Amino acid sequence: MEETRALARFVVNSRLDDVPEPARHEARRSLVNWLGCALGGSRHDAINIALTALGPFSGPPQAAVLGRLERLDILHAALINGMSAHVLDFDDTHLRTLLHPSVPVASALLALGERRALTGADFLHAFILGVEVECRIANAIYFAHNVNWYITGTAGAFGAAAAAGRVLGLDEQKMTWAFGIAATQAAGLREMAGTMCKSFVHGRAAQNGMTAALLATKGFTSSERTIEAPRGFAHVLAARCRLEEITDRLGERYEIALNTYKPYACGVVCHPVIDGCIQLRDRHSFKLEQIAAVELRVHPLALKLTGTKAPQGGLESKWSIYHSAAVAICDGGAGEHQYTDERVRAPKVQRLRERISAEADASLREDEAHVTITLADGRILERHVEHAIGSAGNPMSDRDLEDKFRGLADGVLPLAQTNALIEKCWSVATLADVAEIARMAVPNPPRSPFEKGGWRVL
Amino acid sequence: MEETRALARFVVNSRLDDVPEPARHEARRSLVNWLGCALGGSRHDAINIALTALGPFSGPPQAAVLGRLERLDILHAALINGMSAHVLDFDDTHLRTLLHPSVPVASALLALGERRALTGADFLHAFILGVEVECRIANAIYFAHNVNWYITGTAGAFGAAAAAGRVLGLDEQKMTWAFGIAATQAAGLREMAGTMCKSFVHGRAAQNGMTAALLATKGFTSSERTIEAPRGFAHVLAARCRLEEITDRLGERYEIALNTYKPYACGVVCHPVIDGCIQLRDRHSFKLEQIAAVELRVHPLALKLTGTKAPQGGLESKWSIYHSAAVAICDGGAGEHQYTDERVRAPKVQRLRERISAEADASLREDEAHVTITLADGRILERHVEHAIGSAGNPMSDRDLEDKFRGLADGVLPLAQTNALIEKCWSVATLADVAEIARMAVPNPPRSPFEKGGWRVL
Repeated sequence: MEETRALARFVVNSRLDDVPEPARHEARRSLVNWLGCALGGSRHDAINIALTALGPFSGPPQAAVLGRLERLDILHAALINGMSAHVLDFDDTHLRTLLHPSVPVASALLALGERRALTGADFLHAFILGVEVECRIANAIYFAHNVNWYITGTAGAFGAAAAAGRVLGLDEQKMTWAFGIAATQAAGLREMAGTMCKSFVHGRAAQNGMTAALLATKGFTSSERTIEAPRGFAHVLAARCRLEEITDRLGERYEIALNTYKPYACGVVCHPVIDGCIQLRDRHSFKLEQIAAVELRVHPLALKLTGTKAPQGGLESKWSIYHSAAVAICDGGAGEHQYTDERVRAPKVQRLRERISAEADASLREDEAHVTITLADGRILERHVEHAIGSAGNPMSDRDLEDKFRGLADGVLPLAQTNALIEKCWSVATLADVAEIARMAVPNPPRSPFEKGGWRVL
Repeated sequence: MEETRALARFVVNSRLDDVPEPARHEARRSLVNWLGCALGGSRHDAINIALTALGPFSGPPQAAVLGRLERLDILHAALINGMSAHVLDFDDTHLRTLLHPSVPVASALLALGERRALTGADFLHAFILGVEVECRIANAIYFAHNVNWYITGTAGAFGAAAAAGRVLGLDEQKMTWAFGIAATQAAGLREMAGTMCKSFVHGRAAQNGMTAALLATKGFTSSERTIEAPRGFAHVLAARCRLEEITDRLGERYEIALNTYKPYACGVVCHPVIDGCIQLRDRHSFKLEQIAAVELRVHPLALKLTGTKAPQGGLESKWSIYHSAAVAICDGGAGEHQYTDERVRAPKVQRLRERISAEADASLREDEAHVTITLADGRILERHVEHAIGSAGNPMSDRDLEDKFRGLADGVLPLAQTNALIEKCWSVATLADVAEIARMAVPNPPRSPFEKGGWRVL
């Protein structure tokens, strides 16, 4: 079976009319969530540093840096916007594989939409196709891949290549090459957890995938059996794989329909525990000092991925189930403000964190958890969360997503602009030019350092 | 043991005076060979396509594209020059690991030398350090890594990061981060053999490593145990590793001293066979039509890496031991002209290729081979090559390297300029500004498309 070519053929031949309306609506929800996250992350230190370090090497100011005044060439814009959209760990999740679908695909596509005519409908279609490609490849490998790799950095580059390649009009042969060029850049070690490199890996997937599509346009060649070859992407980056996942009912069911959104700004495997902690806090009356112990029972993956007991900083705390439970009990929430360096060092959070223990239970689902709080007076408070908020079994509503967007854009854009931008996202399929969204997603006046005489030199 | 930090400390604290003169001379030889290869490869289709596809996104014209009129930002220059230097498969080889040491390191460094003041001595020193880092990391993993990955794409990015980081004045902490940022981009599937992606992987190592150093300069963070952590670079990209290789006699012996240069424009594991074929052709009198069979006996790796019986094009033929033996017998050589699409399709080469068989013999070294030609009249011609020309046991002389350079630069630069450039390379340690070399390595007049009004739009 030639999976690589089958995916290329699908992307080249798909028509938007083939995509069922529920999948299209989920794509719009993904766009709202992605853009909100990019705005919210746009002032993060990782973004400031990357812009300072790499800005002097950017090409012409072709595309917006979302939420900011700079403009960059489209490849750098894809990188930086992908980083912003992920850096808060607040972006969407394909739960089966833990891939973050929108970051590589939307970050590449919107930048490309500023460079060439692209209707909102074509944007939406290419977005759906990009997500389809990356999630199907992820389905084939995640179980033997995620322990070492960030799957958004690896499979995600294929998604960006597919979406950009579709918009650039690649034929089947060139789309096949684009997948190979993407694969040969696929990278991202999970060892980078808790550091700025994590967002870098995610932004690089957008940039690398777009690079692949651009090179393929001009006839740059690669392997034509990139995914399935014995030394190809799947076999090398996963000890076991299920290649049949890649073409299973291709064009009949759409992976975008399975996308989920986080109510909390941390690793998705922490979410059921956070739900449980907030619910116990809201339903019972107790003071922090009364807590003797907090016991968590979770899916084994949660402990594997978020088992850091004493995180050293904000980024690392997003991958600590102990910190997540502590702030949920202390603050009744787990938004971006709960995962800052300051909050990590706050004495009352620290003290509570030390009283929390966690145990893996293979009988639980990933979106399920048990939380038990034992108080000094002997009371035992228990909560069983069957489906975390934001999971497939308990999704965020469109209104929830709008509220999340407004919270993230607060301080970045004026509220009226934010509301208009949300409206644009919902009506994306009717836009004559998707670049309208990029233009509205920057503060006014949109003056760039380029316009003021270029970047500061190295 | 903290290998990552130990390497960072070494790079930060090294002094050129610590490096023995033979290692410094080998570095100069490497520079001559690298630059010649970059000039020779500069007109290849892969380079033309990459420049056309990516040029419109280049930043300011900061650095030369060797052998050409374009100027690019230093990151794109590192990419394209790295691709040019490798695309003919004629570049240097660290025989133990099959890493191509100069491509990532020199391609990043020379571009950086056009952006900031850099003496030839500091260039040479940083080059030696970059090679040291990449080769030591390669020593730790190659035996369980090369079957799937291009080690220059993976370990090479560390070399470029080390060299660029040294020139940028990184301290130990930031150098440690630079290694992490490099590792998180480490990529390059061997599945891409025979396609344009192979040179892309090699150029990307230069670009990615420089990106890592630039980000680290501004404080971009990564893991601090990138190489040795349980989920770090070595363990994830190799099923087995020998981490002790990384620090073994660090600062006492230098890997650059082990560098080798190819007399032939193809995979180094083919070279002993080519020697044998040329020697039999020169010493015996026979016609091509008389050949009944050619039998090769080689190290098993040679068959694993270059076992393609019927290559489809020039790039793929560089990895066919059958094609290499055929052209060596037909043409008495194996330069870049023997590995073109035309030569692959030439009927007499094709007919001879079909009469060649090869067998693996684990008792042979990698630079050793037996060649047996059986003629229709019953004569049997045999040749045992103990050490291929260009191997450590039989190195090319300085004069050989100059001749190779002149052959590669022919048609790119006028002979007088070529000779002056070779002289500059030999005297690099005395140059006040290494950018002189970059300026001399382009045709006159050095007018760039930027000066003429920018790149053609997408």
